[in-house]
Formats: sequence, C-alpha cells, structure tokens
Amino acid sequence: MTKDKKGMSASRRQFLTGAAAVGAGAVAGTVARAAGPDPLITEVQDWANGLGHGVDEVPYGLPIEFEGDVIRRNVPWLTADPISSINFTPIHALDGTITPQGCAFERHHSGAITLKKDDYRLMINGLVDQPLVFTYADLERFPRENHVYFCECAANTGMEWAGAQLNGAQFTHGMIHNMEYTGVPLRTLLNEAGLGAAGDFTDKWVYVEGADASSNGRSIPMEKALDDVLVAFKANGEALRREHGYPVRLVVPGWEGNMWVKWLRRIEVTDHAVESREETSKYTDTLEDGTSRKWTWIMDAKSVVTSPSPQAPITHGHGPLVITGLAWSGRGAITGVDVSIDGGKTWTQARLAKPGEKMALTRFYLDTEWNGEDMLVQSRARDDSGYVQPTKAQLRETRGLNSIYHNNCIQTWHVKTNGEAENVEVS
Amino acid sequence: MTKDKKGMSASRRQFLTGAAAVGAGAVAGTVARAAGPDPLITEVQDWANGLGHGVDEVPYGLPIEFEGDVIRRNVPWLTADPISSINFTPIHALDGTITPQGCAFERHHSGAITLKKDDYRLMINGLVDQPLVFTYADLERFPRENHVYFCECAANTGMEWAGAQLNGAQFTHGMIHNMEYTGVPLRTLLNEAGLGAAGDFTDKWVYVEGADASSNGRSIPMEKALDDVLVAFKANGEALRREHGYPVRLVVPGWEGNMWVKWLRRIEVTDHAVESREETSKYTDTLEDGTSRKWTWIMDAKSVVTSPSPQAPITHGHGPLVITGLAWSGRGAITGVDVSIDGGKTWTQARLAKPGEKMALTRFYLDTEWNGEDMLVQSRARDDSGYVQPTKAQLRETRGLNSIYHNNCIQTWHVKTNGEAENVEVS
Repeated sequence: MTKDKKGMSASRRQFLTGAAAVGAGAVAGTVARAAGPDPLITEVQDWANGLGHGVDEVPYGLPIEFEGDVIRRNVPWLTADPISSINFTPIHALDGTITPQGCAFERHHSGAITLKKDDYRLMINGLVDQPLVFTYADLERFPRENHVYFCECAANTGMEWAGAQLNGAQFTHGMIHNMEYTGVPLRTLLNEAGLGAAGDFTDKWVYVEGADASSNGRSIPMEKALDDVLVAFKANGEALRREHGYPVRLVVPGWEGNMWVKWLRRIEVTDHAVESREETSKYTDTLEDGTSRKWTWIMDAKSVVTSPSPQAPITHGHGPLVITGLAWSGRGAITGVDVSIDGGKTWTQARLAKPGEKMALTRFYLDTEWNGEDMLVQSRARDDSGYVQPTKAQLRETRGLNSIYHNNCIQTWHVKTNGEAENVEVS
Repeated sequence: MTKDKKGMSASRRQFLTGAAAVGAGAVAGTVARAAGPDPLITEVQDWANGLGHGVDEVPYGLPIEFEGDVIRRNVPWLTADPISSINFTPIHALDGTITPQGCAFERHHSGAITLKKDDYRLMINGLVDQPLVFTYADLERFPRENHVYFCECAANTGMEWAGAQLNGAQFTHGMIHNMEYTGVPLRTLLNEAGLGAAGDFTDKWVYVEGADASSNGRSIPMEKALDDVLVAFKANGEALRREHGYPVRLVVPGWEGNMWVKWLRRIEVTDHAVESREETSKYTDTLEDGTSRKWTWIMDAKSVVTSPSPQAPITHGHGPLVITGLAWSGRGAITGVDVSIDGGKTWTQARLAKPGEKMALTRFYLDTEWNGEDMLVQSRARDDSGYVQPTKAQLRETRGLNSIYHNNCIQTWHVKTNGEAENVEVS
C-alpha cells in the first residue's frame, strides 16, 4: 500500500526488487539476495573501532580528500593572457543550487588582487549633488539586503558557437555560479550622493570600475542601477573570497558577469555610456554581416544537463536513472524545463526542485529509466517572460557564426551504451 | 526628491551629510570635506599596478587571509571527551542565512570518521517486507529533493541556563548552521523496503545509527520519518564534508541536531522506541523536581542578535547602526522578530530579509541610530504556530535550573558607551 505514495511505476518496483535478472544495475539488492555476506555490513570496520578527527583540527574546513574532482578547472589555450584568467565551476559534480565560493568559477582581467578592508575606498562622483567616498565600515552602516542570484560570464558556452568542442559540462557551461549575496542597494548609495545634479536621471548612466589594474569599466543604465543592483560584501554568509572581489563587488542580477565589477572602487554618474573597451571590442556580438550587437547585457534563458554528462557518465548500468541539471534566466524566473533523450524529437517535462526564483539557478530532475540504449540528452528552459531556450541552429540563423558571447543554445550530450557521454551537435 | 525613496529620516540624512560636527561617526564624508586628500583615492595603488593572482593558484579556494576570525572555535572546558567534540559557528561574523560548510559547527560523539563512498553501506531492517542494503551509488538513483534547513544542537545556549557565561554569540548560539541539502526522502527508502510487515505503521518507530564508534543511535517516530526526513549526500551543492557526515547523513528538519545522524549506516523499523543513551541519560531535560522531560525533539523558536555582540562591537561611534541577527523555529516559519535596546521594556519590529521559510534560518535587520548611550540589546522571535520566544525567567519558571538542553530564551547583550558588548542577564 505504500508503493503508490512514492509514485513509482510497477515496472520500476519490479526492477528494484525482482528476484530474477538483477545485475550490476540493481538499485538495491536484498540482504538475503547478496551473492555472499558483505563484510562492510557484517563485520565491525576500522572506522567504528576508535576515535575519528577532533574538532580542533580544522577551524576552517575543506572538502574531504576523496572529492578531488570537485575543483575549478582551467582550459589553458582559451585565453592569451599572461596569467590564466578563466576557470570553470565543476557543475558536473554539484547538486542543489548554491555554489560554494571555493569552487565558483573565476574570471579576472588582470588577476585577483589583494585589498584589505582598511585600504578599501568607494568613490561616487560625476553628476551627483555631493561626491562621496565610502570606507568599508561606512558601507556596513546602510540597510542591507540578501538575495540569491546567478552570475554567468557572457562567454559561457562561447566556444560552442563553432561546434561541439569542450567535453564536459564544467567547460561548456561552468562559467556560472549562484550565491546568496548580502549588500547595500546601489540606489541607496546613489541617493546618498544625491541625483539632483543629474536632472532627469532616467536617461543617465553609471560607469563602474574596479581597483585592479584592468579597472574593467562598464556602463550601466540608471534604470538598472536604481533597480536591483547591489554593492555586496558577503556571499553565502561569509566575506567574498579574494577571487570574487574581496572586500566589495557589484552584483548586477541577470546581467552578464563582466558587469559584476570586483574590487569595486568607483561609480560615476554620467549622461552617456562610456563605450569602454569592455563594451565595444569585447562583450559585443559580431553578426554575420560584420556589424555587432551591443548592450546585450541580459543573459537569456538557458539550461544544461549536468548528469549524465561527459564528466559524469552513467556507471551503474540500465534501470532507474536520475537526469539532472540547471536552468536560469536573466529575464526572470524559470517556469519549466523539458528534457529530451532523443536529440529534441520528443520532450518530457522535468521536475523543478523548487519553483523558479528570479535571476537564480533552478535545479531540475527527470526521474526515469535507462534501457541501456544510446541517448541524445538535451534540456530546454522556459522563463516567465515566455522565452524558450533556442536550438543552436536557431541561434546561428539569427546570429551567424562570428559570436563568442551569449550562446544560450540547447546543449546535446551523446550518452553511449557503455554510459559514457560526449559533447555533440544534432542537426 | 530621491531622499524619500530610500525611506531615510531627515535626521539620518542630516547626520550623513551635514557640514557640522562630523566626527568618527560619519557614514560618509564628502571628498571636498576630507581633512586632506586621501591617497587611497588620489594615488595609484600597488594593487592597480600589476597582475594579481591567476586562476590556477586555488583549484579549491579558502577565505582570504584577513578573515582569520571567521573560523569555528572550541571551548575546551565544555566537554570531558578525550578529543574535543564541539565547536561553534562564527555567527558573529556572518550575514545572510547560508552557512558555508567550512565554518559550520561540528559535534561528534567519537570524532569525525573517514568513510569512502565505495565503503559506504546503508541497511534498512526490522519490521520491513524486505531488508535492504544500499550502496552510495544506489542512493543516487532515487528521486532527490533540495531543501534549506537549520541544524541546531540541543545543547546550543545550554551553558546559559546557569547565568550569562560565554561572552560571544558564537559561543552562546553558534551550535547552529543552515545549508541547502540534497538527498532522498527517507520515506522513499522505507517504502522500497516495504512497510507491510509493520502492520499499522503509524505507531511504529525507526531507530537510526551512524557508522562511527559512538553509533549515536536515536529513535524517530514513523510519522516524522515518513514526513520530511532526508537521507542527504550534498550540502550547499557539494558533497558533505567529513565533519558533516560524508558521504551520507540524516536531515531531520526542525528537530535537535543529535538526531541528524552522520555517517548513517542503519535504519531499523521497530515497534518501540529504543530508549538509547542518547535519548535517556543525554538529550533529556531534567526539571526542578528531578524528573526529566523526554522526546523533546523540536527546537522551539529562538533568535539572537549577532551584531552588535561581544565579538562584534560597534567601532564606528554613534549615528546610523545596523542591528542584525538570526531567528529560527523547528515548528515552522518565522513570522516576525522584535528587537529591544532597553532590555525588553520596549520593542521595535525588525525587518526580515525575506519571508520566513519552514525550519530554516531567517535573517533580521533593525536599521537604527545609536545615540552613544548604553544599550541592553535583545531579540524576540515569533513563528507561524503563534509561539513567542520566552525570557530566561519564563523558561526557568517552568523548567527550573537543572537543564542543559533546549534553552531558547531571549538573549541580552549589554552594549556599553564605548561600543563594546557583554553577555548579561536582565531581571
């Protein structure tokens, strides 16, 4: 009678406990059915025979030694910078939605700088009533907000414009992380300086820059600056890590990661966009005819299956299989994700772990059975603006092949009969 | 005109930008008003003059060196165990709600053991249709859920029964953490084994134990086991750390941390509570008359101001002050938190960073002004069951002075004129 409650199909139940033909693919064998007694159950083990580690050993802990694959990884040939400047979140090995800071991807333009709180200054100048300089301690005295947001580099999935290139979800989609930020709304600080000098400020801009050598300056329309942008000093409860902009970074929800300026040092209110290097020669999308799209700030709806995937093959044989992945949209909340195992011919609605939240990662699951045959696994996200994640063909049709940035196409993994997976394209 | 939008009082505005009497307490001085040019703004700094750290340096990152105070701490005299067995989350230095695993408190009964996924087994036996043994890989094949829950040790705040003893929120209230868990509902696994053999299972129990030497066995009523208990393998997206039960721990939302068995090895369906050491001589509440309350599993509504507090004094002088803290309830969601600065004579409703979520930490803020006088700072939580956090006097009235566990009284910090704070009691 309890079987119906878990919503498991008859065939699934049969697979799980059937007496016959239970091989490596069994979810659970009965104790009695085991080939022989399992000493890991029947014998007292070493770890139950004495004391383990005391609490004084790790005042600040790291992952256990067996999780050595759950690290940020670099693709050395990807950038020509004198020091490596991009790495990728190991999304193939994570679940849930929160990204620990320790393995959240990094992108620097001149390396991660070391800046003490005491040395930190934030200047607001330009078209304001009173230019202001804030210390770190000053910032802590303004009303704070907490929000979970994803941060995605505009170049995430960028190498895939040219074809299926990087063999792993970490490399194709790992320039994303999702954290709970604590900070002061930028509008609070702008209002502190006073926007009277800006006149009708609705058509004005802010130009934001960091304290590192690159300065990484970007122009942000005032409407966004006054909406949901945060001057953040904590992520997942604790201080930002050095590589995430310690002590203060900008959080620009739903917009490309390059605008989330780290080691934030200056905010200038201007009557025009600066058209900096980072918004002209970089972070624009060159189209088929040689012209470029600019101001493509918003990260459109996107998703990827994280398991199975090239770095997370199926190792347990056929039978019950959890297909899982992440979906997100810079325009709002994810409303649904569909999963295909036949390269987009047919789709099944996945289960969202929670209702989608605005500009935050959503975890999806498809609890299914694998019959051991080849699969072409895809996911397709929908958001509350009505937008549906496009295929790569659809994207190329309007955007050509010259782009690097803003590739939000449907990704395909070819899962082979042996459970291994590979990055492929389907026509 | 922008002043009204930020909801700041006239006096606050005057304080922030007034030309007169601006001392150490100023939130922000104008650039022009600075005593002299600030070289941190006017001069090019070393960190803007070259390359910072490359991405290959830290495949898995740690906090920056300046955050050395944000670590778990032990109170050596607290337990008589051969190895230290309790430490505390640095809640005084955190914000938001998520606790990073690296600084989330630990409580072990025989130390944190090292158990590989390949060596992991979970047995379900007792009154089930078919005893089962699950490997780690088996667990990954069942439908998963994601939930953020707090875990609080029953002994959190336990030393405060006898008076104001430990001088810091980390020590009085730091046996709590709050993470996003990914796991399989326990009911799924129980149904897999089949509860037919348990007859009317509504009055049955499960007895859960860990693989460490202590085994730390606890009895859980079947109603709870079939409700929201998770067999969890990830926290905040990544694998559980060793000290949090790698590879698998039980998550028992809202109930005392001792029941969240780590290194989970066995679940037995029984027709009676086992009355183990951990639920008789320990984790029961001895009353004034010498009898003991038992089965006090649920952690009642509670809150604490984390800043200002003894480890987080006010260092910026008078003027704008953010009072912040955490609230939680094992019975459901926090609906409100009141803050007092006069030892409970008058109360002001705090701002919740987000609507309370069931059995998860809620961050609250009171954005106020400090006039530089002594304060007796308190917080008082309310939950959606209508329960209101009691004073210490109220708690002692019904529970006496013999208890160690389940102290959820209102905490008082005495903030002195110099900004330093101390743990005190008010009558």
